[in-house]
Amino acid sequence: MAPPHVVVVGGGFGGLWTTRGLARADVRITLIDRRNHHLFQPLLYQVATAGLSAPDIAAPLRHILRGQRNVEVRLGEVVAIDAAARTLALADGTRLAYDLLVLASGATHAYFGHDDWAAHAPALKTLDDALEVRRRVLLAFERAEAADDAAERAAWLHFAVVGGGPTGVELAGTLAEIARHTLRGEFRRIDPSQARVRLIEAGPRVLATFPERLSAKARRQLERLGVEVVTGAPVGAIDATGYVLAGERIAARTVLWAAGVAASPLAAMLGAPCDRAGRVQVAPDLTVPGGRPEIFVIGDAAAVRTPDGHPVPGVAPAAKQMGRHVARTIRDRLRGRPSRPFRYRDYGNLATIGRRAAVVDLRGVRFSGVLAWWFWLAAHVFFLIGFRNRLIVLLNWAWAYLTYQRHARIVLEREARADTGAAAAPDG
Amino acid sequence: MAPPHVVVVGGGFGGLWTTRGLARADVRITLIDRRNHHLFQPLLYQVATAGLSAPDIAAPLRHILRGQRNVEVRLGEVVAIDAAARTLALADGTRLAYDLLVLASGATHAYFGHDDWAAHAPALKTLDDALEVRRRVLLAFERAEAADDAAERAAWLHFAVVGGGPTGVELAGTLAEIARHTLRGEFRRIDPSQARVRLIEAGPRVLATFPERLSAKARRQLERLGVEVVTGAPVGAIDATGYVLAGERIAARTVLWAAGVAASPLAAMLGAPCDRAGRVQVAPDLTVPGGRPEIFVIGDAAAVRTPDGHPVPGVAPAAKQMGRHVARTIRDRLRGRPSRPFRYRDYGNLATIGRRAAVVDLRGVRFSGVLAWWFWLAAHVFFLIGFRNRLIVLLNWAWAYLTYQRHARIVLEREARADTGAAAAPDG
Repeated sequence: MAPPHVVVVGGGFGGLWTTRGLARADVRITLIDRRNHHLFQPLLYQVATAGLSAPDIAAPLRHILRGQRNVEVRLGEVVAIDAAARTLALADGTRLAYDLLVLASGATHAYFGHDDWAAHAPALKTLDDALEVRRRVLLAFERAEAADDAAERAAWLHFAVVGGGPTGVELAGTLAEIARHTLRGEFRRIDPSQARVRLIEAGPRVLATFPERLSAKARRQLERLGVEVVTGAPVGAIDATGYVLAGERIAARTVLWAAGVAASPLAAMLGAPCDRAGRVQVAPDLTVPGGRPEIFVIGDAAAVRTPDGHPVPGVAPAAKQMGRHVARTIRDRLRGRPSRPFRYRDYGNLATIGRRAAVVDLRGVRFSGVLAWWFWLAAHVFFLIGFRNRLIVLLNWAWAYLTYQRHARIVLEREARADTGAAAAPDG
Repeated sequence: MAPPHVVVVGGGFGGLWTTRGLARADVRITLIDRRNHHLFQPLLYQVATAGLSAPDIAAPLRHILRGQRNVEVRLGEVVAIDAAARTLALADGTRLAYDLLVLASGATHAYFGHDDWAAHAPALKTLDDALEVRRRVLLAFERAEAADDAAERAAWLHFAVVGGGPTGVELAGTLAEIARHTLRGEFRRIDPSQARVRLIEAGPRVLATFPERLSAKARRQLERLGVEVVTGAPVGAIDATGYVLAGERIAARTVLWAAGVAASPLAAMLGAPCDRAGRVQVAPDLTVPGGRPEIFVIGDAAAVRTPDGHPVPGVAPAAKQMGRHVARTIRDRLRGRPSRPFRYRDYGNLATIGRRAAVVDLRGVRFSGVLAWWFWLAAHVFFLIGFRNRLIVLLNWAWAYLTYQRHARIVLEREARADTGAAAAPDG
């Protein structure tokens, strides 16, 4: 009998850890991703803020898996899933049959019903997103320098980050550092340190998943870095030239979105029950409930709860654990053993804020500031895939730390030209 | 009296060295570039072949010049020059008046009257170009892996490089290394080492500016790396699915252009006499002949001859020397001294071919092979701008050398999607 065909959709933490967990199993695996690389998402904000190059935090999936002979990596976009026929369709017309399907397609941004905001407030999920944010931030200072009008200059120097979760905090802290330190002395008509960086959170505090005391510390650290933190205030509207906050219109050319995520649209194609964010409400063994034991959904595409009812957070360690669990379940099934329920092990919660500022919550052991920052840095470099990347990222950081410089401050010609005369154009 | 306003167009080697040479002169300088960065062009082929990241070989112009208080850097595209009125116009509508103009706008590709080839055979002048070549090369292997048909697969695995100058030789040598070593073991349906890499030169030998003996050595080194070298054969046509050589049509999905350069179109706007490549035929002091002593043209935008009538080559050292010469001429004029003619000092000629293969011609001292390769590497790292970049580039190379890996093998999602189903689409 031919070994079963396992199709894994998505080469993020969930999909990659599933695939690796099946290295010695008697299965044939096809790993499909729209990109040719695995992305170390926790450092994506560093690409968006020009501290790292795109290749620093990405590694080709083929290369990572070259030694695993039961895997075929396929660059492609899944556009349809036929659960009854057990097939899926790719954008290039190919149809693939599966015996087991692991949907690890991740999350995308959600604008809470305001899809028109997407054009004006890019979010941060992929390398494409990060390069777009980088382009906007770097060009904003250029436009401010070229502006003749004081109000226009101020609008180019207003950076609003919407959403006070870890990504929003990281972005705002780093933008403040860029304005205050990195660009010092490089402009002749503007003073970059006069840029306003505003972090806007609709809820009562930033980093809401952390204990209150750490949220308060994070806020103070942000303010010390020069970020204006606004809480309890939802953004009312966003367009090309500004946003509305508490009824007031504010002129701002750069608004970044770090507020909402939703599961990839593939999750909805299964016809399974989903939560409000579009995540599939999976069974305890991470399969799709209702007679589809051959389909697993993991990572940000799945809504999973701990036995005591807490939602499992959408973080890399959770996705890796789910990937490993699915691999174990598949191996068990091949041996005729029953599935075990998934148990999330929470090792803690880290968030970085900026230079020498972070908060750490290790299930009770809580600290912040310089020590937390070093801890965060060590953990992230340790988990970064590939020895080379770790080394280069460490060196880039050491360099940035010593000099305040950010080496990836590159705007391509095509990017710069895309909004020549942007001051007049509506797309900002 | 206000200090004279020097406008420098282009932040490449010529423009940057002019600007630096005027650091202590009593002038006001505006440096205009379409990009925000200076690019170390001699290593561009490394970005195209995924060995280096774009930021590794580029540094923001503002950052390089931050300490020079008499310079204002401006991101913008010059669209018109009015030499009579001594003004120029930018794409965003700004008009700038100059007292002295230094045109260092560089070169672009020339397709010898076949502009329709440009879409099918990208060339290599800017970071945008390099990332486009990288995308095509990486996706070609992906398409070959996905292809069901043997002929189609072969077409995706045929890489033709047109032009046997230094860029063509570097590209072909590196492509052969990628196919034979870097991708080894990563594919399941194709064997990347079966890819054909062909270097096509219309003239009788590769590296025609080198002595014949070194050309012959280069050819042998290329062949040892697995490159098929075809000389004395001009390409007859190029389209999305192949090219014509010596009357024969060859199916190839990736054709790269390294054959012709032409001066930037700005040079022609001066109304001065140009050579066939559109370069301004400048006076011995690098000014525009015929009553325009306030306009200098340098670097690849200028056609310059040595006193004994040899053309000055379009290489980085020549552009730097011209930049320094113009700065000296301007300083002399401010002191009422006469201009001196430009003298090109030829320190030699280097070309790399691939791993441990290069040719070096130091005005008589000629060598090739491993030693030449180390010499080439040392020279290029030494001249790379910015200490950080040198260090990172060296490390990337050391890593690549030891492992045969190329860390920048990233295809962005937008790039991959741009030709989903490319096998059927005409744009390849």
